Amino acid sequence: MSGNTIGKLFTVTTFGESHGLALGAIIDGCPPGLALSEADLQRDLDRRKPGTSRYTTQRREADEVKILSGVFEGKTTGTSIGLLIENQDQRSKDYSKIKDRFRPMHADYSYEQKYGLRDYRGGGRSSARETAMRVAAGAVAKKYLAEKHGVEVRGYLSQLGPIKAEKVDWDVVETNPFFCPDPDKIPEMETFMQALRKSGDSIGARLTVVASKVPVGLGEPVFDRLDADIAHALMGINAVKGVEIGAGFDCVEARGSEHRDELTPQGFTSNNAGGVLGGISSGQDIVAHIALKPTSSILIPGATIDQQGQPVDVITTGRHDPCVGIRAIPIAEAMLAIVLMDHLLRNRGQNADVHCSTPVIPASRN
Amino acid sequence: MSGNTIGKLFTVTTFGESHGLALGAIIDGCPPGLALSEADLQRDLDRRKPGTSRYTTQRREADEVKILSGVFEGKTTGTSIGLLIENQDQRSKDYSKIKDRFRPMHADYSYEQKYGLRDYRGGGRSSARETAMRVAAGAVAKKYLAEKHGVEVRGYLSQLGPIKAEKVDWDVVETNPFFCPDPDKIPEMETFMQALRKSGDSIGARLTVVASKVPVGLGEPVFDRLDADIAHALMGINAVKGVEIGAGFDCVEARGSEHRDELTPQGFTSNNAGGVLGGISSGQDIVAHIALKPTSSILIPGATIDQQGQPVDVITTGRHDPCVGIRAIPIAEAMLAIVLMDHLLRNRGQNADVHCSTPVIPASRN
Amino acid sequence: MSGNTIGKLFTVTTFGESHGLALGAIIDGCPPGLALSEADLQRDLDRRKPGTSRYTTQRREADEVKILSGVFEGKTTGTSIGLLIENQDQRSKDYSKIKDRFRPMHADYSYEQKYGLRDYRGGGRSSARETAMRVAAGAVAKKYLAEKHGVEVRGYLSQLGPIKAEKVDWDVVETNPFFCPDPDKIPEMETFMQALRKSGDSIGARLTVVASKVPVGLGEPVFDRLDADIAHALMGINAVKGVEIGAGFDCVEARGSEHRDELTPQGFTSNNAGGVLGGISSGQDIVAHIALKPTSSILIPGATIDQQGQPVDVITTGRHDPCVGIRAIPIAEAMLAIVLMDHLLRNRGQNADVHCSTPVIPASRN
Amino acid sequence: MSGNTIGKLFTVTTFGESHGLALGAIIDGCPPGLALSEADLQRDLDRRKPGTSRYTTQRREADEVKILSGVFEGKTTGTSIGLLIENQDQRSKDYSKIKDRFRPMHADYSYEQKYGLRDYRGGGRSSARETAMRVAAGAVAKKYLAEKHGVEVRGYLSQLGPIKAEKVDWDVVETNPFFCPDPDKIPEMETFMQALRKSGDSIGARLTVVASKVPVGLGEPVFDRLDADIAHALMGINAVKGVEIGAGFDCVEARGSEHRDELTPQGFTSNNAGGVLGGISSGQDIVAHIALKPTSSILIPGATIDQQGQPVDVITTGRHDPCVGIRAIPIAEAMLAIVLMDHLLRNRGQNADVHCSTPVIPASRN
Repeated sequence: MSGNTIGKLFTVTTFGESHGLALGAIIDGCPPGLALSEADLQRDLDRRKPGTSRYTTQRREADEVKILSGVFEGKTTGTSIGLLIENQDQRSKDYSKIKDRFRPMHADYSYEQKYGLRDYRGGGRSSARETAMRVAAGAVAKKYLAEKHGVEVRGYLSQLGPIKAEKVDWDVVETNPFFCPDPDKIPEMETFMQALRKSGDSIGARLTVVASKVPVGLGEPVFDRLDADIAHALMGINAVKGVEIGAGFDCVEARGSEHRDELTPQGFTSNNAGGVLGGISSGQDIVAHIALKPTSSILIPGATIDQQGQPVDVITTGRHDPCVGIRAIPIAEAMLAIVLMDHLLRNRGQNADVHCSTPVIPASRN
Repeated sequence: MSGNTIGKLFTVTTFGESHGLALGAIIDGCPPGLALSEADLQRDLDRRKPGTSRYTTQRREADEVKILSGVFEGKTTGTSIGLLIENQDQRSKDYSKIKDRFRPMHADYSYEQKYGLRDYRGGGRSSARETAMRVAAGAVAKKYLAEKHGVEVRGYLSQLGPIKAEKVDWDVVETNPFFCPDPDKIPEMETFMQALRKSGDSIGARLTVVASKVPVGLGEPVFDRLDADIAHALMGINAVKGVEIGAGFDCVEARGSEHRDELTPQGFTSNNAGGVLGGISSGQDIVAHIALKPTSSILIPGATIDQQGQPVDVITTGRHDPCVGIRAIPIAEAMLAIVLMDHLLRNRGQNADVHCSTPVIPASRN
Repeated sequence: MSGNTIGKLFTVTTFGESHGLALGAIIDGCPPGLALSEADLQRDLDRRKPGTSRYTTQRREADEVKILSGVFEGKTTGTSIGLLIENQDQRSKDYSKIKDRFRPMHADYSYEQKYGLRDYRGGGRSSARETAMRVAAGAVAKKYLAEKHGVEVRGYLSQLGPIKAEKVDWDVVETNPFFCPDPDKIPEMETFMQALRKSGDSIGARLTVVASKVPVGLGEPVFDRLDADIAHALMGINAVKGVEIGAGFDCVEARGSEHRDELTPQGFTSNNAGGVLGGISSGQDIVAHIALKPTSSILIPGATIDQQGQPVDVITTGRHDPCVGIRAIPIAEAMLAIVLMDHLLRNRGQNADVHCSTPVIPASRN
Repeated sequence: MSGNTIGKLFTVTTFGESHGLALGAIIDGCPPGLALSEADLQRDLDRRKPGTSRYTTQRREADEVKILSGVFEGKTTGTSIGLLIENQDQRSKDYSKIKDRFRPMHADYSYEQKYGLRDYRGGGRSSARETAMRVAAGAVAKKYLAEKHGVEVRGYLSQLGPIKAEKVDWDVVETNPFFCPDPDKIPEMETFMQALRKSGDSIGARLTVVASKVPVGLGEPVFDRLDADIAHALMGINAVKGVEIGAGFDCVEARGSEHRDELTPQGFTSNNAGGVLGGISSGQDIVAHIALKPTSSILIPGATIDQQGQPVDVITTGRHDPCVGIRAIPIAEAMLAIVLMDHLLRNRGQNADVHCSTPVIPASRN
């Protein structure tokens, strides 16, 4: 397994380049008996799909996924599930200019050094297009978690450049092109993004993903902690540069007496832990935040070198998102769902015998 | 592999509870021919060791490691390396009071729910004492990386509660009990910690780890990205709640035109990427920051529940670090070294044939 | 990873049912720079393809493989390689009669018990049709091994029911429908198979696979021995019930003084070890033998139970091979190649530093 | 994981050389709540222990195992279990003569080529002494399987050189030094072994291991089949050259009409499958046979080369078993138990939801 597989009992392996023939994935370890159809996967794919608003790339891809195996008469069979999305909009000519030069902050240089050659069309394997398959696979995990355990995995844009969401209204998230949970900030974001687009520049973002009603006990205590595996899954999304669980970096300046989440029979009094204690889910909401860097593909020329090591300028004229963070919400949800699904199966395998006499306390009261 | 193993080609598996008979580890996949003795491991163990200053726990452990296998006539043989530290100072009586109640922000509650029983003495397996073995194993990785590739892995305390280090003088780091790189801040930290100790409270911290002279090309492009694996390894350290690579969360407010690290024949012009492009090392310094929460074991009573779910108070009277972040520096270095070592071997396995004609450019000029 | 992935650094993951839409595979870990086209894979697929002689099933499948990713401008890029074969000849009506009864010696009963439901069409995932993807993936391994290291992986039918090949003429193997290496036995096999077909019965077989010019040093010394991994890969082929390395079960009656392969500067004096010493390749030919049971799908009625547990008769009227062993040769070669490829990369990762002053001695003189 | 770990959810990782300080293992993934003490492990260790009869090596090792972690107040806690056996009888002087020459059929030559150096004392890591830890770990699996599922894992010597056991009386197996199940053959074996010892030679053996009352549904359908994983585990035992499941190589000459195990409501009519259908346990007894080569360490001089590649003679004067097969029975049982345990947990993780309405039929009536 060299980098294209995630998970231990519920595994997802992907293939596909930005401008190749197709993207695909194999999900292995999905329990049998789950009702599953392409429509279940398409909803999240459509949320991630390019070209849906003027704030995202205008590249158009139907991103229609086909289930090739592992489902029989509408139900999963327990065998491996093959998924395929054929690429349609492959304007490879857009990329010929960058064939021999390394776009700053892109993977071009490191790929070239590692592999000695690369598919330069649209970033090849390093393109965020690869994440379509993560979204499709994550939708399977989401469905199982929801149907069998009532777990809900959701996300929102908590910050767009300098603009922070100050309240979280889940009903608003899916009704605006930014996945912004704070209705008061949407006009500000629109204005900001229009100005940004004109400037040819790009901006970073902060996303928050939350899983509710997660069973207590998921996660392994040392290296494969639930928070560690979430960090792995989220940091593995293109452009992510930081991951926080619960209070995250705010804990640096916090005192133990104020930071600790006290337990009462009526529930935890707070959720600074973000739902993970000692690497194991506590039954509180799992809360994670991620930082996404500004898109590196911008219209403003930048300095770089070419394959001979000579200095050259580079400008990216293709179709790109000015803020990759926006479309990353379904991806982050998918990765969180995949990690939870994997740990659910692992925990069930190992701790099916367990009977704990202590009652499970409710999630945070605040 | 249920949580106690990390790595794919260079793997570390650990065992041991805080108040058990011994801690141990097996390192598998260390190349043969590396000169290795217990002294090589002891240096970092001593840096992590409790009881070395009045700012850390007064529990005293010699933490003397024995190499039980895998080394013959002073050199590694390529077979698995067994490590052992026998526990000496096992004052289990300290912990009888918390046997039937769950310390807030500790793993007590989640362990009990997951396993139905737990070794309550000193946190059992969830104790930070387990990390001694990570440090020992990391020292092997560090030695190999340094001897064979000139890689240097180091760390420092970048923030202690509200006090931020404002400059980095590596020569200062090992000469003060805080691993603080800024000589001007040390007196402030001393004053702060003395007041904190008196108050019976604890404080969070931010650490920075840096790996220099890392070969270009380490890391796999999709799920097992180098940054994702670093995030996994660092978030898996007890008390860590956030991980950043390079600019980290600062990238949220940054524009693409200012954030991107441009390439010139003389080197990168900056290192916002933290040494990783597209999940693959770029030859720049690998830079990661982590947030550690304040110690949960404090002298100030807190509310919790007992095993019957009834409300009770808890106070932790054992010997604890008021700031766990301080002693975590060797641990963070060790985890970073283990990840780099694993990816070095993986990359060598897969890309030994590669010849890239593009010259490797120097690390950041800034 | 639940059963559909093999390998650690060179991994193959497959999906697909006998009568589903398609079969597919993802190869992860193939080094970059290998010239690769669909024709490279098609040769072995055609050797395994059904309907090529009257001694195999008359089901007709073109088995045309498409490479969907991981190859750019004719060379592997080092990223994951997606493979696809679309199913064409899906006569599902053949199988409606066995929908609710368990064919003896088939996986029907164990699948039903394990998963609670199954794709009964043609055995679903348990069909040998799944092995087409192993052959395709194995062809990639074979090509790399041959081009970069001169390794040759070949196989033959060493026994068909009671008829044993008594000599090995490699030039004959590919010129007869049985992959028989002994030209004198071919007429006997033809007569035997014609009589067998008339009787509606089936027969077992013994195959031999050989890898020549394998580098010394592949394999890990304890659990992941080369021979253990070969046994795993070969026993994992449908219908295989036994695996031998080198002398195999003949060693039971052998004495140490006659069994040991002595070493001389001119080479080993024999190859009872089958090319593996202490789990590690010795430079001799790797030799493995496998036993394949007679096809369970026969025209002679048999007793079984139905889904209610009631006794019923079953007869298999579909198109089946009277001796599955014949078409299994490319599969066995593929599995051996995949194991060697994986261990080559693993060994290279870990032991690239090694310089051994002892000269490599030639393969067996006999 | 480079060769010293086995299993996916129930994993065993070992270390230790024949003449090193100690042997050790870490068991990861053992469910919590299992009553476990050193005595549970010692029984099988004593069965494997050298020096118990005049038919085995006279090296004396107490082989007393210590449990260092993972057990609290007599029960497993669900965390990793550390095991240790300190070596006592380390007569390294015995081995100085073979320091610079490669014993035929031993791992000396392949280790030297792979690693560039080796611990030559008693075979170092390649010594069968390493298997003591497999036996200890297997005892944990055995206990869990027996207590929670009533599974019984047993083994016997089915053939000693030319002498075949012709009946299986389980009550006899543990009462004779050969683990022979046929009381009539014991005197013959005694005579044979005495003559063999005088001749300074060694002999091969065939062992049979059986697991009864195995739940239906263990094993994954493609690469990680139960039989494939058993083959991997058994072929990974030192000296094993062949593995059979059920009828094994006898199936080569069998016809489908006679080989297939028919199903009736009263049970299967035979067990040629050896308890595995389509890679998945069927509820029948799991039956496996293995071939062990004659001990390579014999008193009769043999030809070999030294580290300079020059021809030399070698004679092994140390204390060795004339038939390694005899002491391998507890090892084979242990490996079978470890595989079953791992697949039990994996299956439970993935298929806990499954309800199959078909009744489980009894094991073979014959």
